[in-house]
Amino acid sequence: MSDTPALILFSMDMAAAIVFAATGALAASRRQLDIVGFVWLAVATGVGGGTVRDLILGVPVFWVVNPAHIVACVVTATLIHFTAHLLERRFIALLWLDALGMALVTVAGTSKGLAVGAAPLIAVTMGVFTASVGGIIRDVLSQEPSVIMRKEIYVTAALAGAISYVIAVQLGAGKLGAGLAGFGVAAGLRMAALGFGWTLPVYRPRAARDYPLDEDRSRDPGDKAGRG
Amino acid sequence: MSDTPALILFSMDMAAAIVFAATGALAASRRQLDIVGFVWLAVATGVGGGTVRDLILGVPVFWVVNPAHIVACVVTATLIHFTAHLLERRFIALLWLDALGMALVTVAGTSKGLAVGAAPLIAVTMGVFTASVGGIIRDVLSQEPSVIMRKEIYVTAALAGAISYVIAVQLGAGKLGAGLAGFGVAAGLRMAALGFGWTLPVYRPRAARDYPLDEDRSRDPGDKAGRG
Amino acid sequence: MSDTPALILFSMDMAAAIVFAATGALAASRRQLDIVGFVWLAVATGVGGGTVRDLILGVPVFWVVNPAHIVACVVTATLIHFTAHLLERRFIALLWLDALGMALVTVAGTSKGLAVGAAPLIAVTMGVFTASVGGIIRDVLSQEPSVIMRKEIYVTAALAGAISYVIAVQLGAGKLGAGLAGFGVAAGLRMAALGFGWTLPVYRPRAARDYPLDEDRSRDPGDKAGRG
Repeated sequence: MSDTPALILFSMDMAAAIVFAATGALAASRRQLDIVGFVWLAVATGVGGGTVRDLILGVPVFWVVNPAHIVACVVTATLIHFTAHLLERRFIALLWLDALGMALVTVAGTSKGLAVGAAPLIAVTMGVFTASVGGIIRDVLSQEPSVIMRKEIYVTAALAGAISYVIAVQLGAGKLGAGLAGFGVAAGLRMAALGFGWTLPVYRPRAARDYPLDEDRSRDPGDKAGRG
Repeated sequence: MSDTPALILFSMDMAAAIVFAATGALAASRRQLDIVGFVWLAVATGVGGGTVRDLILGVPVFWVVNPAHIVACVVTATLIHFTAHLLERRFIALLWLDALGMALVTVAGTSKGLAVGAAPLIAVTMGVFTASVGGIIRDVLSQEPSVIMRKEIYVTAALAGAISYVIAVQLGAGKLGAGLAGFGVAAGLRMAALGFGWTLPVYRPRAARDYPLDEDRSRDPGDKAGRG
Repeated sequence: MSDTPALILFSMDMAAAIVFAATGALAASRRQLDIVGFVWLAVATGVGGGTVRDLILGVPVFWVVNPAHIVACVVTATLIHFTAHLLERRFIALLWLDALGMALVTVAGTSKGLAVGAAPLIAVTMGVFTASVGGIIRDVLSQEPSVIMRKEIYVTAALAGAISYVIAVQLGAGKLGAGLAGFGVAAGLRMAALGFGWTLPVYRPRAARDYPLDEDRSRDPGDKAGRG
């Protein structure tokens, strides 16, 4: 299998940008924004994760190098602005699209981490971290609870995908093979979790909880005014 | 017209920092913060957009190169801390100031994008994106709905201003002329929208909406605990 | 006193990462997340401030250079996931831990700013700004009011610590001595504020407040739908 990492990375960034852009545009449709709001949220969600990845790795930001990703996000947002109403149950669609985007970004982040010579652990961290950033930007701006706060297997799936990618590379798989492995594990685990309602056990305090939820914030009664 | 891009960019960054710092300080007065809170929010709002712009473009961050911008933000915040009560209807003032800051940042972002050799589309993206970032930081930290989520012509005005700037440059206008064009379009459109209540048509689902707003979040009833 | 800045900076980044990671993990326990949520929030809180510091200063991100910090955050989060219930009143513990983390990050940020040749004012800004970023990331993702919005001496303590560090350096103190001074002032002031309930005077409008809190947001009644 011939490795053409630059082209593969470009394609993955592009596919991830389109898919995440679609989730951003669907979030915009949920908030009933205008078309510029669709485009803004689609672009921020679509390229946010890769942007943070490139900044942290100290390499040129991918969409500044090649504007094709921005074009793709703008086109995606515009299409969705005019067609979202045709899509029955589009918020469910958003969840499944997001799973694909997350898996792509995980592989792209991990792979780029290894490509610039980072340690495997750092590459995995980059994969997981950047897989979360696009969705976090979308959720924070839409004032939704971010993926980090939801009791779903999301970050876990990204983590499993990133680890699979690194292991596959170390076992001698080509970038394409490793990418398919990482993508398959991340997307498969996330989709299985969506389909079957899987969750990890959550932390539960074992002692009786006799404190109010915001005990540590209530020193100054005045500071409650700021709560959403 | 002689072009002295470095000086012009410096002045625009400075003016934008002061104006955005003022909006950050007014947001702090609304939240009744102490003077350090005023300064922090003023600095973050004042230099946030340009910081992200410089990071993405891969050039040194402007206020690290020259601390004058930070001084200006600190002075602005301190002045406003002691004088905001003199200003009748200061939250309306904030809206108009913010329009000026947005227009300045749009031009500065687009212009710097072109200056480092980015494609016109990327320069426009930088203008729009960085015009939004200062206000988004301010709004997210103040727990207000960000400008992206509000049904107002804001990002649209930045977009129109950035496109005007790029077109003016391509028509052979000097940086000052193009800057005035971009600034005028962005500020004028935003102010007209503020004054006349203009909005773009928003997305409206055409099928009957029979789903609750948070249908796709409600898989696990437990995750509602975290909602603001 | 021999200065070994690289080692001292490494140790401070490491100690700050562990302490902030603990506060992130405790926030995760408050939200009853799963173990991957603990790790994610611990890593983001633990290395967030230093990451932004390094990006703004234009130096390689510390944890990409050396993965030890990530390992430390992961171990901290895992330990806390299994032991947090043993800790009585752990949300009070979080406040005190956070004071230590803030003081460490303040010194590390200011010191690294000076080390790369930034002006003293910029170094102070870096110290204050990066001291706030880890906690802000944690609070925004946990949908808590961020430290900036709380009427507590927090940023003020970071500011005092950063200024103390710069003054000590300019008086000829070694990096260790200056670091102890900055750390002592920042941590001491924050802890005194916690213990004695100190606050700075807050801004209070002196004219009668006859406007509703969200007057300036209510131009379009529709935009309230998006509020948390």
